[in-house]
Amino acid sequence: MTHNVAILGASGYTGAELVRLISQHPDIQIAALAAERKAGMEMADVFPHLRHLSLPTLCKIGEIDFSTIDLCFCALPHKTSQEVISALPADLKIVDLSADFRLSDPEEYEKWYGNPHSAVEMQKEAVYGLTEFNREAIANARLVAGTGCNAATGQFVLRPLIAADVIDLDDIILDMKCAVSGAGRALKENLLHAELSEGYNAYALGSTHRHLGEFDEQFSAIAGRPVKVQFTPHLLPVNRGILATTYVKGDAKAIYAALEAAYKDEPFVELLPFGQGPSTHNVRGSNFVHIGVAEDRLEGRAIVIAALDNLTKGSSGQALQNANLMLGLEETAGLMMAPLFP
Amino acid sequence: MTHNVAILGASGYTGAELVRLISQHPDIQIAALAAERKAGMEMADVFPHLRHLSLPTLCKIGEIDFSTIDLCFCALPHKTSQEVISALPADLKIVDLSADFRLSDPEEYEKWYGNPHSAVEMQKEAVYGLTEFNREAIANARLVAGTGCNAATGQFVLRPLIAADVIDLDDIILDMKCAVSGAGRALKENLLHAELSEGYNAYALGSTHRHLGEFDEQFSAIAGRPVKVQFTPHLLPVNRGILATTYVKGDAKAIYAALEAAYKDEPFVELLPFGQGPSTHNVRGSNFVHIGVAEDRLEGRAIVIAALDNLTKGSSGQALQNANLMLGLEETAGLMMAPLFP
Amino acid sequence: MTHNVAILGASGYTGAELVRLISQHPDIQIAALAAERKAGMEMADVFPHLRHLSLPTLCKIGEIDFSTIDLCFCALPHKTSQEVISALPADLKIVDLSADFRLSDPEEYEKWYGNPHSAVEMQKEAVYGLTEFNREAIANARLVAGTGCNAATGQFVLRPLIAADVIDLDDIILDMKCAVSGAGRALKENLLHAELSEGYNAYALGSTHRHLGEFDEQFSAIAGRPVKVQFTPHLLPVNRGILATTYVKGDAKAIYAALEAAYKDEPFVELLPFGQGPSTHNVRGSNFVHIGVAEDRLEGRAIVIAALDNLTKGSSGQALQNANLMLGLEETAGLMMAPLFP
Amino acid sequence: MTHNVAILGASGYTGAELVRLISQHPDIQIAALAAERKAGMEMADVFPHLRHLSLPTLCKIGEIDFSTIDLCFCALPHKTSQEVISALPADLKIVDLSADFRLSDPEEYEKWYGNPHSAVEMQKEAVYGLTEFNREAIANARLVAGTGCNAATGQFVLRPLIAADVIDLDDIILDMKCAVSGAGRALKENLLHAELSEGYNAYALGSTHRHLGEFDEQFSAIAGRPVKVQFTPHLLPVNRGILATTYVKGDAKAIYAALEAAYKDEPFVELLPFGQGPSTHNVRGSNFVHIGVAEDRLEGRAIVIAALDNLTKGSSGQALQNANLMLGLEETAGLMMAPLFP
Repeated sequence: MTHNVAILGASGYTGAELVRLISQHPDIQIAALAAERKAGMEMADVFPHLRHLSLPTLCKIGEIDFSTIDLCFCALPHKTSQEVISALPADLKIVDLSADFRLSDPEEYEKWYGNPHSAVEMQKEAVYGLTEFNREAIANARLVAGTGCNAATGQFVLRPLIAADVIDLDDIILDMKCAVSGAGRALKENLLHAELSEGYNAYALGSTHRHLGEFDEQFSAIAGRPVKVQFTPHLLPVNRGILATTYVKGDAKAIYAALEAAYKDEPFVELLPFGQGPSTHNVRGSNFVHIGVAEDRLEGRAIVIAALDNLTKGSSGQALQNANLMLGLEETAGLMMAPLFP
Repeated sequence: MTHNVAILGASGYTGAELVRLISQHPDIQIAALAAERKAGMEMADVFPHLRHLSLPTLCKIGEIDFSTIDLCFCALPHKTSQEVISALPADLKIVDLSADFRLSDPEEYEKWYGNPHSAVEMQKEAVYGLTEFNREAIANARLVAGTGCNAATGQFVLRPLIAADVIDLDDIILDMKCAVSGAGRALKENLLHAELSEGYNAYALGSTHRHLGEFDEQFSAIAGRPVKVQFTPHLLPVNRGILATTYVKGDAKAIYAALEAAYKDEPFVELLPFGQGPSTHNVRGSNFVHIGVAEDRLEGRAIVIAALDNLTKGSSGQALQNANLMLGLEETAGLMMAPLFP
Repeated sequence: MTHNVAILGASGYTGAELVRLISQHPDIQIAALAAERKAGMEMADVFPHLRHLSLPTLCKIGEIDFSTIDLCFCALPHKTSQEVISALPADLKIVDLSADFRLSDPEEYEKWYGNPHSAVEMQKEAVYGLTEFNREAIANARLVAGTGCNAATGQFVLRPLIAADVIDLDDIILDMKCAVSGAGRALKENLLHAELSEGYNAYALGSTHRHLGEFDEQFSAIAGRPVKVQFTPHLLPVNRGILATTYVKGDAKAIYAALEAAYKDEPFVELLPFGQGPSTHNVRGSNFVHIGVAEDRLEGRAIVIAALDNLTKGSSGQALQNANLMLGLEETAGLMMAPLFP
Repeated sequence: MTHNVAILGASGYTGAELVRLISQHPDIQIAALAAERKAGMEMADVFPHLRHLSLPTLCKIGEIDFSTIDLCFCALPHKTSQEVISALPADLKIVDLSADFRLSDPEEYEKWYGNPHSAVEMQKEAVYGLTEFNREAIANARLVAGTGCNAATGQFVLRPLIAADVIDLDDIILDMKCAVSGAGRALKENLLHAELSEGYNAYALGSTHRHLGEFDEQFSAIAGRPVKVQFTPHLLPVNRGILATTYVKGDAKAIYAALEAAYKDEPFVELLPFGQGPSTHNVRGSNFVHIGVAEDRLEGRAIVIAALDNLTKGSSGQALQNANLMLGLEETAGLMMAPLFP
């Protein structure tokens, strides 16, 4: 049986990535594509790389007949997303890729995003969408909140370590390196090729990046006590990929064992041989996460590094993985394509 | 029914690309991977992006039991390829990705490649593997010669125009821009990141590139008279993609009509609206070709531009497309993945 | 004696490039920097790479006391430039980097730029600023029009060949590859890193690029008859550099001789050994032009390739070279820095 | 008075960078260029970007008449360097860019480099070449050891902080991001464009990189007790630039004050306004270091980030700065060129 999905916000990178992935999915088809400002255009004119596909013409959200839709992906900007989702049918299955439902606490939301949440009831209903750690809840959820791409990467490293109690919770540093597509298709000076190419820099200095809200909430919940990490993102002159270099205090072998136990049956998580590190080049365009662990020369310290593709495993691939669960499909359906290298 | 294939030369880029593509193929599985110098290693150690796959350990060619193999891909360097293929079972179906069987004339081969051909009989038997123009022969062939990646790109532009007699055959210029992966994984100074990145240059100046042998033979055969094009390749600081800017004399509308007629039912060839040009970014990682046509301000002249991914449609994707035909499978099987953008 | 200059439009790439170059000039100092929308800001905040310099605060043009200025660089958008320059003191020496005074014919200007020229008298007064071919007029000019960066590159190839009558004037093809900084610091979707990196494409298909106006006017003047070239620019994923691959009909040795004669005493033009081609990587950040010539396999045809840095020799370096002449300084002053490689 | 210098190892990137810099130096000229395997070639054929310069033909070291040389730059591989330098005239001023004389302790040298030092006496004589911290000794030295490029970057951050006693010496993490040119012009698979571009990864995991030897020796000397940092380098797909993100425990304002005091009169070190971070793009091709400081949300922690160009300030620019001191010239001579942006 084929399931019909709608994608709201189809003219952004995560929307296009959903189309790319779903075009190869055996059981899901795209019934509607909404993009308010580009309504009436063909997807081929907005994203010429998709021109071989037969796709619905871009429309406005209001034009979609949601009674024919089995699941809706929202790839809209935060704040817009909560407004739009509030107005959708109350029984519609939704995977939201924005930041709007990632935090369960309205105060934390307002603190990190600067505006009060306008759909607080839904915020409570939403299930956090880091699939590997929340399968059952996601399968039964109506509304799933996709994680931040940096937040996903950091959690693949740290959740098992916190749960297994093998690291010092008060001394965790996440040095993150992020590709430019994580910032979307926005017209900002610092995203121009001439500004970015041949350079790299940190941003959101001092642990001020919004994804910290997710880290705080998730890690504290696992630990049963407040956990606050230090987190510095860097903008890199590449289009896809996140690398999280994580500095922790703990026994490297115990850390490796905790990750091995956590991921031994996971189809999308590859733990590298001890001492080896991952490269973003080896996961790009795929739904895989590569993780490496090394022991530092300083006793009791370890480095754990994770790499994933921010648009796939960090966003649209994760969203499809969740949709598979919500629709009762094979979790890996449409997601086993190999990375593109070189 | 699943078909078993072997890949000889699995440690190069075209070998790895075959593995990537076949990993998603419904009816083909990889039974053997040969790489002489890396025999004994796991593919995951040579190409970590493939580590999620269960693949045979790399072996030497001599270790393969070809009686269990339905089709063999040879992704070896030219000259080595003819020697290896000569020694394979005489009834084994083979798709060769090297230059060894692209030219049917032994003298032309020697002229362009500098050594006499050591398997002249096989050279005669080999079928030229530009699928869209040679389907029936490929389906019935034992040995198919994959085309050069530049040669494929130029032919997608020019074959229909020569066949339809809509251009001046004596004034054809192919200005080609090629990604670095076309040169393979060889350790050459000009392929280093520090040498190539932030620069670009022409090479093989004066129409001396080997792929001209293919152009000469193919175009002359279609025209029924000698056709010699001018061809200047340029090396670009990107990993995948070829763009062929072709300067021809003829009526742009007639040219467009000839391409439209040639490609209207082709699953992998997209003719863009008149006046639009393609970008390599819109085909990367895919088996699609995008073609655009524009009229010049100078009367009677047109520009035709084609873009494809040199490793996919220009090499390993084409090879799999041919293998599908040779094995009686759907031609598009395993090849309909969308391009990776951004 | 030190000369005071002003730079109008200091917040764009060509403005910043002028500051970079002049910061090393022995006889010129920057007395005023204007940028309307960023007036009041420090240059260090607009361009942090210049923060080691002591520079005037950005101001509005109206705030500059031009009686203290010996020469003014206008690095403003076209159309704005003619309006601003019309209002400047009538005896102020000006080097304009915009397109506004490149064409001497008001009708041609309107045809290519879409608006009538509002300073037709000045248009007549302006001297075309391709230094190597117009030294005396530039030295005596009040208003010099900097050339287009593509236009400069093509002319370095073709002017000596047209003047020496060694090529067929009716069959000239310029296949141009241009770096992204040529488009300036504008916020356009196609200039985003994620759109541009890993791709390349042609634009202005069909010889519709505005720099053709310059080619037409200059080449026809040299030839004494109309000369119209075919010209296709391509956008490349690099920040600096233009490569012009030129296809001409004529004897390659005669072509080489004509270039050798034209450039043998030129400090900034390097003619490579016959048969070698240039790379943009070898001129970046410098005021040098590298030119190569090769004979095609097709009799009577040649390929001539030129490479320069669009922001330096193609724009701000050329402007400073002209300013040196206009101020009676050594032409090469402040411009002999070597290219940055790698 | 003009000083004559020789460059040994002129065919590598640091050799070429020395030529680029010296070509603009008012008081130094290149009298000899040695490159054993390329002896007899012209520099223009090895590095076409330098073809506008009149340079000596490449020779073998043995062919140089050192009696005419005032100072010799050795840009040779480590181990080779100590052998070559041992055989040079005992009174020749030398700036060595290799790793051979960076460590004063022969045992530490052997530990990090794997071979016993063959010139232990000279090792003792050598002065550590981080100019800003060792001016007097360098000015009086005969043999100066250039620092590692990563080592320089980390020290610009940490030396003033250790000296001012404003950070916890037992919890210092250096997360370093390095451009590919730092690895030289070697033919290694991981340095190929196709391998590196579009990816990034950590290497030398577990604080095993050789530059740690320098950190250990220098920092311990300043502190008067052993100081061992954690250091993870990452390889980035750009040609120039190092960014050191440093995680320290201490008061961010005190840290800023210490850096301000240390660098307020330094011509090449720019301390950014508090809270701002540097970008490698803003220092490339220059001898400048940009440093930024931010306070973390976690009390008592700070992030300090430094950016420099590994080939210039991290290697050849530093070498020339030292040579200036050794020859009694202005320290900044030939080194004040602005960075190349974009």
